[in-house]
Amino acid sequence: MRWTLPSDQVPTAWFNVAPHLPAPLDPPLHPGTRQPLGPDDLAPLFPMALIAQEMSTEPWIDVPGPVLDLLRLWRPTPLVRAHRLEQALGTPARIYYKDESVSPAGSHKPNTAVAQAHYNKEEGVPRLTTETGAGQWGSALAFATALLGMECKVYMVRASFGQKPYRRVMMETWGATVEASPVDEPDHPGSLGSAISDAVRDAAGRADSHYSLGSVLNHVLLHQTVIGLEAKEQLALAGEERPDVVIGSCGGGSNLGGLALPFVPDADVELLAVEPASCPTLTEGRFDYDFGDTAGLTPLLSMYTLGHDFVPPSIHAGGLRYHGDSPIISNLVRHGRMRAVAYPQGTVFDAAVQFARTQGSIPAPETSHAIRAAIDEALRAKEEGTERVILFSYSGHGLLDLQAYDDYLSGRLDAS
Amino acid sequence: MRWTLPSDQVPTAWFNVAPHLPAPLDPPLHPGTRQPLGPDDLAPLFPMALIAQEMSTEPWIDVPGPVLDLLRLWRPTPLVRAHRLEQALGTPARIYYKDESVSPAGSHKPNTAVAQAHYNKEEGVPRLTTETGAGQWGSALAFATALLGMECKVYMVRASFGQKPYRRVMMETWGATVEASPVDEPDHPGSLGSAISDAVRDAAGRADSHYSLGSVLNHVLLHQTVIGLEAKEQLALAGEERPDVVIGSCGGGSNLGGLALPFVPDADVELLAVEPASCPTLTEGRFDYDFGDTAGLTPLLSMYTLGHDFVPPSIHAGGLRYHGDSPIISNLVRHGRMRAVAYPQGTVFDAAVQFARTQGSIPAPETSHAIRAAIDEALRAKEEGTERVILFSYSGHGLLDLQAYDDYLSGRLDAS
Repeated sequence: MRWTLPSDQVPTAWFNVAPHLPAPLDPPLHPGTRQPLGPDDLAPLFPMALIAQEMSTEPWIDVPGPVLDLLRLWRPTPLVRAHRLEQALGTPARIYYKDESVSPAGSHKPNTAVAQAHYNKEEGVPRLTTETGAGQWGSALAFATALLGMECKVYMVRASFGQKPYRRVMMETWGATVEASPVDEPDHPGSLGSAISDAVRDAAGRADSHYSLGSVLNHVLLHQTVIGLEAKEQLALAGEERPDVVIGSCGGGSNLGGLALPFVPDADVELLAVEPASCPTLTEGRFDYDFGDTAGLTPLLSMYTLGHDFVPPSIHAGGLRYHGDSPIISNLVRHGRMRAVAYPQGTVFDAAVQFARTQGSIPAPETSHAIRAAIDEALRAKEEGTERVILFSYSGHGLLDLQAYDDYLSGRLDAS
Repeated sequence: MRWTLPSDQVPTAWFNVAPHLPAPLDPPLHPGTRQPLGPDDLAPLFPMALIAQEMSTEPWIDVPGPVLDLLRLWRPTPLVRAHRLEQALGTPARIYYKDESVSPAGSHKPNTAVAQAHYNKEEGVPRLTTETGAGQWGSALAFATALLGMECKVYMVRASFGQKPYRRVMMETWGATVEASPVDEPDHPGSLGSAISDAVRDAAGRADSHYSLGSVLNHVLLHQTVIGLEAKEQLALAGEERPDVVIGSCGGGSNLGGLALPFVPDADVELLAVEPASCPTLTEGRFDYDFGDTAGLTPLLSMYTLGHDFVPPSIHAGGLRYHGDSPIISNLVRHGRMRAVAYPQGTVFDAAVQFARTQGSIPAPETSHAIRAAIDEALRAKEEGTERVILFSYSGHGLLDLQAYDDYLSGRLDAS
């Protein structure tokens, strides 16, 4: 069973979690002076509207009309009851997922990409730079800038640039220019941290350009809250008072935040972050100020981190390979409002294939972390004989990750 | 703007065009005797329920409840108004498309796959065989059999098996077994005709198996009519009395038929088939009895054909590389109820990229034939200054066809 909403029911305001956090957010610090940042410090990289959102404590922020028009190209996304998965598990739990894979870029990432591109265009900035690992975020920004007639330059982690050409082709189909990173070390395989450094340097050095980040920052999570706001409406249509637990995979925190933040004020709703055992930022990192990139060009953020020089192993869930985490998600975990668990890759793919063979859709490796946790919650409900309502974020499809499935099915996958 | 429908509004009966055709269909002939086939001749390959549908003249045929449950995993699909494409073209035409790409297999093909798998399971047949070219149909049947707990064996054209591994991985993720065809000539690149021969031989030789075909036959087009039936409802919601023209790409005829057949009784609605210039079955073929496969194992069908030994050039729209055509589509073209046009591959990809950069979605090469024709209809409306309502079938996405886009963008595409 699926619950859709008409396209005039895309939320018209974003939900700002800032007033609802268990403790105030620590301010970002200037990378040179280590003093709290002012809006002017960020102006070379971001438009003022986004800087204001980054620091806002207003409970709701209006979605501009042109952004609504773009979101309506694929939103509202469906809420789906995973009846067939429930039956296969024999669980009394009711499992729902919010299907963000229906966007043209195949994930939740365009929710913020269209908003960021819009505000930059409004401020007269015709060109955006960004980084991308496996390509989810880069393709979302390429999509958004194509719709608004803007230029887009994507620095793509060199290892992915060579091994995953199809995401590059997607970005080029939408008219973006894609370059392997690090640009000045042609033999280096690169990392997300080094690609951020390249993209920030480019934007800071050109008057016609700004930089755009696909996760981590407050305004990014803000734009993603359309996910959770729609899910609340749709759960009501499905006759559910509230979910018992809300689950999302967590790299930088954007899909998890998008679904979970609107539930933060609902004290009886558990929130659960799921990360890879090989990049266990929330479960094993330290809570501290750290840089967002490798080169130390970005502001210092207060977050869980494995250290900005940490190089995560090459797992298939490229979108979860990040040394740090969103300050908002870190705040929620730090103060006990959200739990975090970590899973090794092998059990994640067990869940992915079980999902594909019951519900019919092939999930992204990142998304499969949330599926693994949802299945485990449902199995616990079965053991306990409780009717638990589980909601998870189906953040993206796996149609550009089939190599990972081939590795898994043929026994070549590193299970750790 | 998008029009969705709640999942309890999936059509509960298929539309049978047989009573509305301009002339009765010629019966299929036995390949040996060349006499009209009886139901018993088809029983080794198909369940009786499908054979009855193949020959039925009832105006409506009920969709069984278990099939409805499966269709509701992704249906009703959205109807989308292509506002941004209209603006880019500066046309007074209103362009709508029915988005079948949202199915888990990425195309319209699962509409018939779930029905065919269901009827076979009901008759106690636990295993299906089929052929696939680029992999759209094979993946749809693998998806459907996974949902029903059946076995599936797919014979995949050897050239695609080697060059397009990701569709194979999709099928394997859903649990199907995939083998390169022709099985007895390991150096032959294969063709759709030869893969059909392999799949038919397999099914005919095993008591536990039937064969399943993804296009051409009457029951396949019948199952696809949910597309057009939903589109009629959604056009009414959009405030349109009727479309002026309904457009679909045409290989075997299943997506075109699915959208267009429910409009056949509406005499003032034009119907338009779009095919590749390199495989011009409807525009340059002869109307005659011919085999569906290369080896001459299938019944003889009355259709437009380029000859069952015709080997289409290797274009990217693999789903349109078929020597013959659906008898129903052939009947409509033969008797003037439907027009046909052919386009070379270069102009088709021009349209595909224009669509991706305005509407945001990357279409399959097959689908892009319909987009090319829709754009040309909209440009004609602009010239004539008429408010034409154009409806086309967005039969699938191009996320597993990005190699073709890379060829196009880098100037390597054969434009013919």
